[in-house]
Parts: sequence; structure tokens; C-alpha cells
Amino acid sequence: MNGDIVLPELPQVPITLEGSSVLHQMFRFDWAAWKKLPAAERAAIASEFSEILGRWEAGSAEGHPNQSALFSQIGHKGDLTLIHFRESLEELNRAELELAQSGIYPYLQVTSSYLSVVELGLYESSEKIYSELAAAGLEPGTPEWNAGIKEKTARTFASLASRLYPSIPPAKYLCFYPMDRKRGEQVNWYAEPMGDRRAMMHEHGLIGRRYADSVRQIITGSIGLDDWEWGVDLFAEDPVVFKKLIYEMRFDKVSAVYASFGQFFLSVRVPAANASQWFEGTLA
Amino acid sequence: MNGDIVLPELPQVPITLEGSSVLHQMFRFDWAAWKKLPAAERAAIASEFSEILGRWEAGSAEGHPNQSALFSQIGHKGDLTLIHFRESLEELNRAELELAQSGIYPYLQVTSSYLSVVELGLYESSEKIYSELAAAGLEPGTPEWNAGIKEKTARTFASLASRLYPSIPPAKYLCFYPMDRKRGEQVNWYAEPMGDRRAMMHEHGLIGRRYADSVRQIITGSIGLDDWEWGVDLFAEDPVVFKKLIYEMRFDKVSAVYASFGQFFLSVRVPAANASQWFEGTLA
Amino acid sequence: MNGDIVLPELPQVPITLEGSSVLHQMFRFDWAAWKKLPAAERAAIASEFSEILGRWEAGSAEGHPNQSALFSQIGHKGDLTLIHFRESLEELNRAELELAQSGIYPYLQVTSSYLSVVELGLYESSEKIYSELAAAGLEPGTPEWNAGIKEKTARTFASLASRLYPSIPPAKYLCFYPMDRKRGEQVNWYAEPMGDRRAMMHEHGLIGRRYADSVRQIITGSIGLDDWEWGVDLFAEDPVVFKKLIYEMRFDKVSAVYASFGQFFLSVRVPAANASQWFEGTLA
Amino acid sequence: MNGDIVLPELPQVPITLEGSSVLHQMFRFDWAAWKKLPAAERAAIASEFSEILGRWEAGSAEGHPNQSALFSQIGHKGDLTLIHFRESLEELNRAELELAQSGIYPYLQVTSSYLSVVELGLYESSEKIYSELAAAGLEPGTPEWNAGIKEKTARTFASLASRLYPSIPPAKYLCFYPMDRKRGEQVNWYAEPMGDRRAMMHEHGLIGRRYADSVRQIITGSIGLDDWEWGVDLFAEDPVVFKKLIYEMRFDKVSAVYASFGQFFLSVRVPAANASQWFEGTLA
Amino acid sequence: MNGDIVLPELPQVPITLEGSSVLHQMFRFDWAAWKKLPAAERAAIASEFSEILGRWEAGSAEGHPNQSALFSQIGHKGDLTLIHFRESLEELNRAELELAQSGIYPYLQVTSSYLSVVELGLYESSEKIYSELAAAGLEPGTPEWNAGIKEKTARTFASLASRLYPSIPPAKYLCFYPMDRKRGEQVNWYAEPMGDRRAMMHEHGLIGRRYADSVRQIITGSIGLDDWEWGVDLFAEDPVVFKKLIYEMRFDKVSAVYASFGQFFLSVRVPAANASQWFEGTLA
Repeated sequence: MNGDIVLPELPQVPITLEGSSVLHQMFRFDWAAWKKLPAAERAAIASEFSEILGRWEAGSAEGHPNQSALFSQIGHKGDLTLIHFRESLEELNRAELELAQSGIYPYLQVTSSYLSVVELGLYESSEKIYSELAAAGLEPGTPEWNAGIKEKTARTFASLASRLYPSIPPAKYLCFYPMDRKRGEQVNWYAEPMGDRRAMMHEHGLIGRRYADSVRQIITGSIGLDDWEWGVDLFAEDPVVFKKLIYEMRFDKVSAVYASFGQFFLSVRVPAANASQWFEGTLA
Repeated sequence: MNGDIVLPELPQVPITLEGSSVLHQMFRFDWAAWKKLPAAERAAIASEFSEILGRWEAGSAEGHPNQSALFSQIGHKGDLTLIHFRESLEELNRAELELAQSGIYPYLQVTSSYLSVVELGLYESSEKIYSELAAAGLEPGTPEWNAGIKEKTARTFASLASRLYPSIPPAKYLCFYPMDRKRGEQVNWYAEPMGDRRAMMHEHGLIGRRYADSVRQIITGSIGLDDWEWGVDLFAEDPVVFKKLIYEMRFDKVSAVYASFGQFFLSVRVPAANASQWFEGTLA
Repeated sequence: MNGDIVLPELPQVPITLEGSSVLHQMFRFDWAAWKKLPAAERAAIASEFSEILGRWEAGSAEGHPNQSALFSQIGHKGDLTLIHFRESLEELNRAELELAQSGIYPYLQVTSSYLSVVELGLYESSEKIYSELAAAGLEPGTPEWNAGIKEKTARTFASLASRLYPSIPPAKYLCFYPMDRKRGEQVNWYAEPMGDRRAMMHEHGLIGRRYADSVRQIITGSIGLDDWEWGVDLFAEDPVVFKKLIYEMRFDKVSAVYASFGQFFLSVRVPAANASQWFEGTLA
Repeated sequence: MNGDIVLPELPQVPITLEGSSVLHQMFRFDWAAWKKLPAAERAAIASEFSEILGRWEAGSAEGHPNQSALFSQIGHKGDLTLIHFRESLEELNRAELELAQSGIYPYLQVTSSYLSVVELGLYESSEKIYSELAAAGLEPGTPEWNAGIKEKTARTFASLASRLYPSIPPAKYLCFYPMDRKRGEQVNWYAEPMGDRRAMMHEHGLIGRRYADSVRQIITGSIGLDDWEWGVDLFAEDPVVFKKLIYEMRFDKVSAVYASFGQFFLSVRVPAANASQWFEGTLA
Repeated sequence: MNGDIVLPELPQVPITLEGSSVLHQMFRFDWAAWKKLPAAERAAIASEFSEILGRWEAGSAEGHPNQSALFSQIGHKGDLTLIHFRESLEELNRAELELAQSGIYPYLQVTSSYLSVVELGLYESSEKIYSELAAAGLEPGTPEWNAGIKEKTARTFASLASRLYPSIPPAKYLCFYPMDRKRGEQVNWYAEPMGDRRAMMHEHGLIGRRYADSVRQIITGSIGLDDWEWGVDLFAEDPVVFKKLIYEMRFDKVSAVYASFGQFFLSVRVPAANASQWFEGTLA
């Protein structure tokens, strides 16, 4: 009888799907040195950079978009933000190196960066999938188990391809910040039962969905890649919406109790077509 | 009967009204490089900057004031503070970029900044408005609900316009600091019931009101915009009042238990008319 | 009958008296650039600085002393410390600006600073004064109440004038550090009853008094002015006494449980008369 | 009778075996200065460096491998990572000094480093060995006891020689991070009984073992050598596996409750044969 | 009757004896600038430095040793460490100033430092001495009491002179780190009864004693002098012993529960005779 069977304790880690590799780069721009250059030289360098950015902005004609985008950052944490979406971490490093060879690079002083991969957490279905695999007699962590997960998430993966390998939304404003789930002495996200975490994430998602019309969100995972566990990119036409959304979320349990936030980076999109103008001091 | 009805749990986030976008910029001034310039060149650069600052100080002739102001900062965190009030974050970025193109910029080394928007929290009336909307059958977060809030706060918004889009007070001293409400393991502002938070904010406000004659206060919100949740600007003729006010507040519950403070920046107003003098080393 | 009367809850903030405005400046000295100057130029610059410092050291002939003093700092946090006592924060900023115009300034790299005002806390008498004012029917925070406090502390203020506007003690060693009272989740100074705080401060004061012969102490308040709540200056001929005093105090309740300390700055007095020698590398 | 004997409390510290001394060096590369050099000079310097790295990469022909390896780092924490395995700390310092004399060094700005020694913790057998030694009448910490441990671990040491003095795995990606075990007020790894710690480490090891095919791991100990207690190097062909592995581990008790992590450094292997290419901006 | 007498509560602070004043200086060496100097100039500067160091290494022919020693530091926290033992803090500042005047100084970039005095804590005998003084009718903190302590510790002081004013051990490796005793909300060393602290320190000392053959330890106190409470110098021929010793200690109660550690600095001794070689890039 089933009553005698004690099911193996199922994994506590939610299933995640991974997509594009993502690098954020923040730079201070050395206006003093830049302004000392003759206007023609500035124009040539800006034009070279615009060409590179234009190519990156366009991304891949086929397959994943693999785009980059430039933003004019507000405040002392940097003057420019570059986001790169690529096929792999190696390709991100290649983008860094290509930029480092360009004429604009001596005027860019790197102040921060963030490395992560687009991540979709399947909190809603993880337990169900784990139970099915366990019921099929598979043991967590075995090659068979891993193959089973791959199989059961394949359709989801395919249907979410455009979210796993996203184009960069064309919105005017970008808000980026990294975050952790707390592992405190009494408040420890990683010690909460899967079901409770799922319920909290569900409530959290409902708020986000209500803002879906005005804010586009890309979540990236960075455990093992950078100093925080996740990076969050929000894109919107009206930046006050960032405040409204995040303030409202701060009162839901998963944020109020378990979230720990890094620095916030606020910036304004600069399309490649306007980059040269920016380097002459004008936000188009 | 009403007794059977369980009202939906109302939102826990207080209603806020937003006004001007605000940027604080702190700079160290490179006296050594500056003093190496010929006097005539220094005068020309200072004059150019005074002209820009004068224009910013005057702000808009119509609509919102959208002013900037300059302060001589005390201590090693910077020598100069600039505050900008503008119509949007984009306009703040434009002010940054305009300054970066001016002749004084190579002598300014940015040390800090703060990005926020003027915020008035309607703690006193949020629950009442939420209850009325709920009683009218609206569901939190729906477009109808949001429209209802807009409608019910429209009169307040209009009556508070001069506080939402403030002129910069002409007081001699400025005290600026950012702050958070704590989300600790046992002490968590965001987990307190709305009514308790309202009562604590009320008590807090009473202290502020007693200092209204000697201190002018502007509260800005920065959740989602910068690294702390709020920025506080205090303006006064006598800086000891800053200490008296903040010391007294530190004993009210909302500060004693729930407040977490960032750095404090103290500075002395330098009107555009006196800026050239300052660059020759004299605080008028 | 009195038994029916519930006295209004008296303020929890102890009465403080404020005196001189105080600025600490810490600098690293750029020996490499300095040594490249011709000896005659070094001598001229050192002499100009000695003249300024001599004037500041002398302070005011009448009224408050308003002195400055120079110290040779030990360790990597800086090479020189300057303390300024002045009539106002504005005057402190003027001292900063005057120094910035002098020939020595390009060789000084500011590493730290601290802004505060001399503060005497009347923990012993605050409750008594508050009770008397309340008994006289005054309400806390009203202009009448404030006037009552001013009146009742006027004699104390006058008798403590030399401690509120102190001369700088001529001792050989200076120990400076900023500190806070903790506002933890369970240990919160600002949530303790006034009477308990008074008793702990009393015990704390007894230790200080036992060291009065060998250590001269100046307490300054910096809530609302700088990043910590208080700054402490200790002056002594034998620096081991700093260790003995602070170690002993660390076991009294107010320090053991409620104190949080910033950095410690240790330095040796350099009278203006010896400043030129110091700039040639000799501690007289 | 044995019943009368109270065995001495056995040591709580697990037995560890130590192997290679290891130094991680992280550098930012000064592309601006480098690009100003004539191409021939760049080529000569890159060639000299490639020769050194080639020699280090080859390591020792006999005895322990004692290799070094170069990695192209992603993000602002540095552009290049060098790992050195050597016979002693002194030899690591010699490698540092040799690099400092080479032509590439003026273009390398050190941003971080980590010093440690390869460590294998014998959690599984420590209690058994301690019990045997105690049963043999030896007293913990005596020379006889230490000799006994040496004797009892000699065979293990010999059999693990290739893990104690490892070759550097040839994988494409490196993930490095330092970590601590927490010593909090309620959660304190060092106050847990040996048996509980052993059990938790066992569970932890099982996860690692499931990833053994795709991730090669080298654990180094740094208590008393650097600012964290351990350093972890993970080598893999697919960097997403770092995220999968560390995310899964974050839910096991020893990580969820007791682990505290430093910064994460992610980089791509650059064999000596490709180093010159890298210095021309190309990741082979 | 004695039964009626309540003895005054004895001081909680353990008696300490103080000896040499100690300064640690950590420097990065500017190899790029150094290598640009002509070889003859490098040789002259290195020779001048070796002469100074040789003199400092020799120390005083009579009285206390008052030596200095040079170490080649491993990792990015610095390239060179200098330790100075002197008669007073003033003399330490003189050593700093003398070094700053020497030809090598422009190539030294100070990265860290630590100021302290050699301290021997008499935990074992403090209570006994306090009881004897109290039994003699003396009151804690009075001049008589202080004189009594001086008298009762005079013999100990004399017998420990060589530990209070130590020569610098000639061992190959140095490990330096600062540390605190915790004052947490629940775990507070300074709130523990004297007897418990004594017992824990005793247990702690036993471990140290077992390593006495392979590690020489110098404890310095820095309360009131620098940012941590104590500095620890360990000297050994084999640096793995640092790890073994500190790992073992981490499980004793006083470390596991009450210790908080700063940065660890690991370095290799460079005798004055080998200093010139070091400046040519060779660790002898």
C-alpha cells in the first residue's frame, strides 16, 4: 500500500530556466580629458563608437537577439551604462574587450558592473514536476532525474524563448539593482519550506503583473556569477512608476521580510543614433 | 447584513503624491589646479558658472519653480553641493550634462549624489480612501481603483502644489541626509500594521511642526531611484536647530526603533551673486 | 486632589547646552611633491602656514577663545590633524577656505573630517527642570516651555561658559573618535527610560572624573551635523592613559551595552612655533 | 572498570591535510597606456610575459605541479586573474616579485588577491582517529598525539597527493569566491558539536559529488592567511553549472544557515599560447 | 561582624601591563616608477634605506630593544610591512617622519597601519589583587588603590620586562591581524562576569602554549589608539602553523563566541642585509 511508502524528500531548489548571458557596465566619463581633444578627433571617436553601438544595438539577425544598449546614467555612480545580452559569458568578455580597443575607452572609467544570466524561476510547477519524477521512481540528482526535468520543462522553455532571450525594451528609463534573499539568524529564505516560498513568490508576482502595462521587467540570476543572487532590470517611460512598484512590493512578505537590496542605478536610454550628440553634452 | 461581509484586506502601502524630480550633487573642488590658472581665466570661468547658476537659481518664470541652488559644504565629504529641482529625471540629467560642458567642471570632482522625487505621504488619509474605494466595490490595483485614488487625491494634490513643486528656501544652512525604515529580523517597519505606522508618523509629525518656525523641511522619496528610501533636506538660519530637532526626533518611536540613517551633509548657501567670490576663497 | 492628576509624559530627550562649533580635519601630507620644491620655497610656504596657524592658535583676544591647533598624526589615516573651534559653522567653513588658499594646501590631501558643536548634556537635571515646568502648567515644546528651559539653564550656561567655549588644552597627545548610542533590535538606548539613562550616564561620569587629573575631555554633539552622534576629544601627556580610561569605561553599562565606536585618531601636538620644523621632517 | 573512566573531551577541530600554497591575483589592465605603446614594443612585452606564463603553466617537471594559469576576467573587479600554485608561501611571493619585474607589470593595476593553501578536511574520519588516539592513552595536543595523527593520516595523505598538490584543470571557465562559516549570536558553526558538523558536511559533499562530471573543485584554507576562512575554485566548461551547483547547495543546511560568502570572480581561461592575442584585445 | 559587610563590587577590568609602543606600516611599492630610475640611483636609494633599516633593526644597545623589522608582504594589501617597536608613541611618529624624508619614500604608497602598545593581561591574578586591596580597605579608582596595584604588579612587571619590551623574533614568516571582543545584543564579552572571562582566557592560553615551540606571539592593546581592541603578531618558520593554531583556537569559547577579526596580513622577513636585493626584485 502507498501508505507504507515514504517518498524521498524532494529537492528544495526551484527549477530555473536560463537564457541570455548579461553584463551591465557602468562608467564615469572623463569630460575634462575629452574636451581637450580637437572637435574633429572627438567626432571621429564618437562616430566609431556609434558604429559599434549601432551594430550591437541591432544584435543578431537570426537566432537570439543578443543586443546591447546605452544609457545616460544620473548621479555620481557613473555617467554611462551599457547593457549587453549575449549567447555566452565568453561573448560578453569579447564585447568588453572590443570596447576596450575602441577610441572612446580611454575616456571611460569603469565604476561598476554586474554579470548574470536571464533566469525564469518555475516556482509554480517545480513541486509538481518533482513529484511526478519521484512517482516515476527516479532519484533526485541522477542523470535520469536531470533528463526528466529537461524533458518536462522543454515545452515551457520553448514557449518562453522570447523571455529567456529577450530583445532590449525600447523604454526611455532603466532602473537596475541587484538583490539577495536573506539568510539571517531567524529570517532565512533558504530554510523556508518550498510551498511557503512558492506562495510568497506568487503573491509577489501578482503585484508585478498589475504594473505590466507600464513596466517591463527582466530578472537575471547571478548566484555563482556575481556578488548578489539576482539582478533586476526595470524599463519604463515614467520613472515614478519604479518607485510606486517597488514601494508597493516592499510591503509584500517576500520583500518586506526576505529581500536585501544593493545599489540602484537609474539611467535614460541613448539610442546609437543619438550617441554622438551625448558626447557633445546633449541628451536628445 | 454587514456583519457577514469580510472586507478585502486593504493595501498596506500609504498613498503618496509626487512632485519635482530632485538631484543632489556633491563635489570636491580642485583648489590646487584652479589656483594655477591665470586670474583672468579663473574670473572668466567663475563668471560663466555664475551665469549658469543664476539662470538655474531663477528657475522657471511660469509653471513649477524648477530651481537649483549652490552651497559651500563643510568637511571632507565635499566642498560644494548643488541641488537641482526639475520637471523630470531626464531634465536632471540634462542639468548634469550642461554642468559637465562648462569651464568649471574640470575642477569639480564628484564625491556623492542623491536622486529622488518630492514626496508627500498621505498616511493620515490612506486608510479612509482605501475603505471608501473598497466600499464602492472597487478592487485594489485595478485601473478603476487607481483612477479612484487619483480622483480622491486630486484636490489634495492641487492644494499641496507649492509643497510638491517647492521653491528652494533661502535659508543660510542646509542639512541633507538619506534614510531607511528598518527591515530587521524583529523590528520591521514594513511588517507593522498600517494603523500603527500611521500613529507613529503622526507623533513624528508633531515634533516637526513645533520646529516649523525655524526649520523648513523637504522630504523626497527614492525607493527604486537611489540607495536609500528617502532623502531629507532641512533648511535653517541656525544649524544648531538641526541637532535639536533630530535629537528630539530620535526619541520618538518611528525614529528610535525604525529609522536607519545615511551620511549627513552640512553646507552654507552661496547665492549665484556670491559664487565668483567663493571661487576666490571667500564665503560672503 | 493631586492623585487625580496624570502629569503629561515628559520629554525623553535630555537638555543640552551648545557652545563652540568644531571642525576636525585630517590630511595626508604629500612628502614626495613637497621634497621636490626648492628649500627656499618650502621655507616660505611653511612660514606662511606657521603665521596662519599662529594667528589661529592665539584665537580671539576677547570673547570666546575660537582657537585652532595642529597635530602630527600617527599611522595611515593621515599625517596631520587640524582642530578648529569657532563661533559658528560658517566661521569653520571660512577657516577651511582660508587654508585652501594658502601655499601649503596643494600638499595636503584631505582624508577625513568631523563636524560638531561642543555639547554639555544635563542628564542630571533634565527631569527636575521638566517636572518644574510641567508643574507650572507649561506644555512641552511650546514657546513658553522653551523659554522656561532657557531661563532655568541660564545660570548653568553662564557657569559652564569656559567648558562650552573651551581653550584647546596644551597636552602633548590627542585622541579623537566619534561614537553612537546603539539602536539595535533588542538593545536600544533611545528606547530606555530617561531615569535609567541618567543613572548609566552618572556611573559613566564617575569613571571619567577619576581620570580628570591626567585626561582632559571635550564632548561635542553631531546629530544632524555629521555621520556619528558624538565626537570625543581626549587630551593627555601620556597616551597609555587613553587606553586605560577607555578600557575601564568599556565595562560600564552605557559603553559595554550601548556604545558603538568609529575610527580612532591618535596624534601629537605641533605648536605653531614648531610647524616649520615638522615640514622639514622633525617632530620637535 | 571502564564505567569509571571519563574520556577526555576530544578536540572539536577536524583534522586537515595541507598541500600547495595558492595565490590568486586580480588585475585591471591599463588599456589606455598600453595602446599608446608602439606595436613592436607591445609585441615584445607580450612575448616576454607569454614566455614567463608558459614556464609557469608548465610548472615542475618532477615533484608537485606548482603551476600558474591566466584568466580573462569579466566585469569591473578586474580584467585578468592569475592563479599560482607553489611549494610554499615564500615561492608565491617570489612569483609576485618576478611578475613585478616584467615589462607588463606597469600596465597591471592590482585590484584584489587571495592567499591560501590547498586543504582537505577529514571530517569523516576525525572523530574515529581522535577516539583511537585517546583510547591509546594519548592526550590531545601533546607531541605524541600530534605524531599519532600524522601516522594515522599518512596513508590518506599519500593517496590524496594529487588532490593536495593539484594540476590546474584545463576547463574554460573559473569561478572563485572566498567564504566563512558564521559565528553569529544564535547561529554559530564553531559552537556546533563535531558530529552535527560532520553530518552537515557529508550532506554538502553529496551535492558536490553529483556535479563531479561537470565541475572540478579545489578547496583552499585561509584561516590565519587571508580575510576569509576558505577559498573555493570551481572549474567548468559551462558557467551556468556554477549557478546550478551553488544555488542547489544554498538550500543544504551547512550553506543555508552557516555560510557567508565574499565576492565572486568569474573568468575565462587564457592559455599562455593565447596571451599575446589577448593583449591585442582578442579572446581566442 | 564580617557578615554585615558587603564588599564593594570589584572592578571588572583586568589589570594590564604595558610595554613598547608599536606601529605596523603597510606599503604598496611603486615598481613602475622605481624601474624607471637609473640603476645607480636605485642602488643609492636602496642603500640609504638599508642603512636606516639596519640601524633600526639593531635597535638600542642599552635599555629596551626598540627595534624595527621589514617584511615582504604577499597579496594586494601591500608589498612591504614595517614593524616598529619604540619607547613611546612620539618616537613612533619620529620613525614615520624619518622614513618620509628618505629617498625610498616616494615609491612607498601607504595602504594600512596599526598603532598599539605591547600588553600583558593579568586575568589570572586581577581578582586576587583586587580582593587584597579591598580587604585592605582601599577603594577602587583612588590614588591609593592605583598605587596598590602598581606595588602588587611591580615584581610581575620586572619579571616580564623582556616580554613587555620584546626583541623582534627572527622567524621567517609574520602573521598580523587586529581583533575585537564582541559586544552584541546577546553575546557581549564586556558584560560577562570577570570569573567567566578569566576561565575562558585560561582555556585559550592553553592552546597557545601547546604551539609555543613553533609560534612566537606578541599581543598589543589598542583600545583608544586604533580601530580595533587588540593587535596580534605571530612569528613562525612554517606559515601553515598559523592556520593550524588559529583554526584550533576558533573552536575555544572565547574565540568561537566572542572574537571578531579584522584583516590578516601575511609576510616574509627581509633582513636589512637583504633589503637592496628585494628592491631589485629578489627575495633572498
